[in-house]
Amino acid sequence: MAEILLQHVREAHARIRGCVHRTPVLTSRRLDEISGAHLFFKCENFQKTGAFKARGAANAVLSLGDDEAARGVATHSSGNHAAALSWAAGMRGIGATVVMPRTASPVKIASVERYGGKIVFCEPTHRAREEAADKVVRETGAVLVHPYNDARIIAGAGTAALELLEDVPDLDMVICPVGGGGLLSGTAIAAKGLRPAIRVLAGEPKGAADASASLKAGVRQPVEKPSSVADGLLAFVGDLTFAVIQRHVDAIGTVPDAAIMAALRRLFEVMKIAVEPSGAVAYAALAEGRFDAAGRRVGIILSGGNLDLERTLG
Amino acid sequence: MAEILLQHVREAHARIRGCVHRTPVLTSRRLDEISGAHLFFKCENFQKTGAFKARGAANAVLSLGDDEAARGVATHSSGNHAAALSWAAGMRGIGATVVMPRTASPVKIASVERYGGKIVFCEPTHRAREEAADKVVRETGAVLVHPYNDARIIAGAGTAALELLEDVPDLDMVICPVGGGGLLSGTAIAAKGLRPAIRVLAGEPKGAADASASLKAGVRQPVEKPSSVADGLLAFVGDLTFAVIQRHVDAIGTVPDAAIMAALRRLFEVMKIAVEPSGAVAYAALAEGRFDAAGRRVGIILSGGNLDLERTLG
Repeated sequence: MAEILLQHVREAHARIRGCVHRTPVLTSRRLDEISGAHLFFKCENFQKTGAFKARGAANAVLSLGDDEAARGVATHSSGNHAAALSWAAGMRGIGATVVMPRTASPVKIASVERYGGKIVFCEPTHRAREEAADKVVRETGAVLVHPYNDARIIAGAGTAALELLEDVPDLDMVICPVGGGGLLSGTAIAAKGLRPAIRVLAGEPKGAADASASLKAGVRQPVEKPSSVADGLLAFVGDLTFAVIQRHVDAIGTVPDAAIMAALRRLFEVMKIAVEPSGAVAYAALAEGRFDAAGRRVGIILSGGNLDLERTLG
Repeated sequence: MAEILLQHVREAHARIRGCVHRTPVLTSRRLDEISGAHLFFKCENFQKTGAFKARGAANAVLSLGDDEAARGVATHSSGNHAAALSWAAGMRGIGATVVMPRTASPVKIASVERYGGKIVFCEPTHRAREEAADKVVRETGAVLVHPYNDARIIAGAGTAALELLEDVPDLDMVICPVGGGGLLSGTAIAAKGLRPAIRVLAGEPKGAADASASLKAGVRQPVEKPSSVADGLLAFVGDLTFAVIQRHVDAIGTVPDAAIMAALRRLFEVMKIAVEPSGAVAYAALAEGRFDAAGRRVGIILSGGNLDLERTLG
């Protein structure tokens, strides 16, 4: 597999910019005071389908040749990639079949249904998801669009950091969440490509800290039973995404669920925006002091906003 | 008292524009589909201090002569005006004393304290608030800045509609919430001044529907014990604000608390933004079909975002 480069992120951006939002970069004087740094929040919670996943899904679907596209697409996802792929497929007028864990958030299930995706439920394990998706592909001939371990998805995800650095070129560091590593690897490729001196950092839930452990060990380290309120970050980092993370990512900080929820609440109360637990993990890692950010200009990717009010806060 | 005119709103805007946010106007394809109209949300939940109240408070405080300002300012408020006046006074380096009902939201109390306002608590009735504020003025010599029945506050509040119509000039109607009537009268003056054919409408909680009853009766109709989840809209419409409402407002639609909470949740889940109950009442009235909006271009003022997570949703 050829290396994924800044050029691929630029091509993805040209491909998708007409159909995704250029999301705003928000600042807050009060959050700057609390953190002692200058924070620039890239609001992918306002993205189409409510998460950055629309970028990679649109890039993947728009990259397909007509013959491939005619077969439809399939994937497995805890929710946001499922909705995004259903949305992107709908734009192109092709079918999408998505394997989702039966424990997926009702809000995310409803979203997939609204975008016209066909859902196949499975047990909430990594293996069950992969197997069910393979079965769909075998039976339907659909093109598998993996939720993160896919060059098209990585390049698409990197377009958020591309826009952030266009808007705020002089960042000292950029932080995003890491689950399977699609957003982190895309962010790293875009950010280091545009600004080699930038530090690329990630927040990861303590209960699903395989990326952090893998980065330390130098080889992928699965976590037996990942568990976190950040339901979008339970996936196991991929071989493709891990190679990029090893090469470009400076550090990954882990945070407990309580810190994730505190971050979510603070973003809500101070910035008046809805960010889902997975989407608040980068800010949580900063707020917990995982990185030396004092006085720095820090980009933070708020990756999604598909919050289930009752379930999360009730 | 001389009539308040569009010119006064323009002067207020010139006075305050350097210290308040020009808040964004957001749209949502999905909310347009649900409503069958074209909706333009003026996001005063993102305003300084978390509510449109910053506009009137800044206008009032910046309008004071130096001698007046030296005496400090005082007011009574359920919370957002209290925080806004404390903030505005702090900008000018003068003191603010605010009378708040002892039942005020903890989030709003904390906000006043953060901005350096001195709080005097009172019973949660209209009369107790007015009396306690009068006592503060007598004892301290502070300048009373009434939360709504004040020309400076009305003109300042009108600057939100001024900006909205600058951004979206061809609106057919504009809807805001009504409590004491400061925002509604300012909105009406700005909107009818800029665009005489526009319909100016308001949403009001069923449990505090004095403005709606007053508009029908042609004379102010107090409500005995106003009660609603929209804690910012319990005040009794003023003589000054009511005169403007009678002259310029086309209709007021009332909504039960359940509709207000449903509106708040939908704004949260679809638009990913935090709007407090009082701030969601205009959208609630539209969503409940109180106005004939089919196919129309509708401006909706989301007036505040100071939501107490646990208290409101827990």
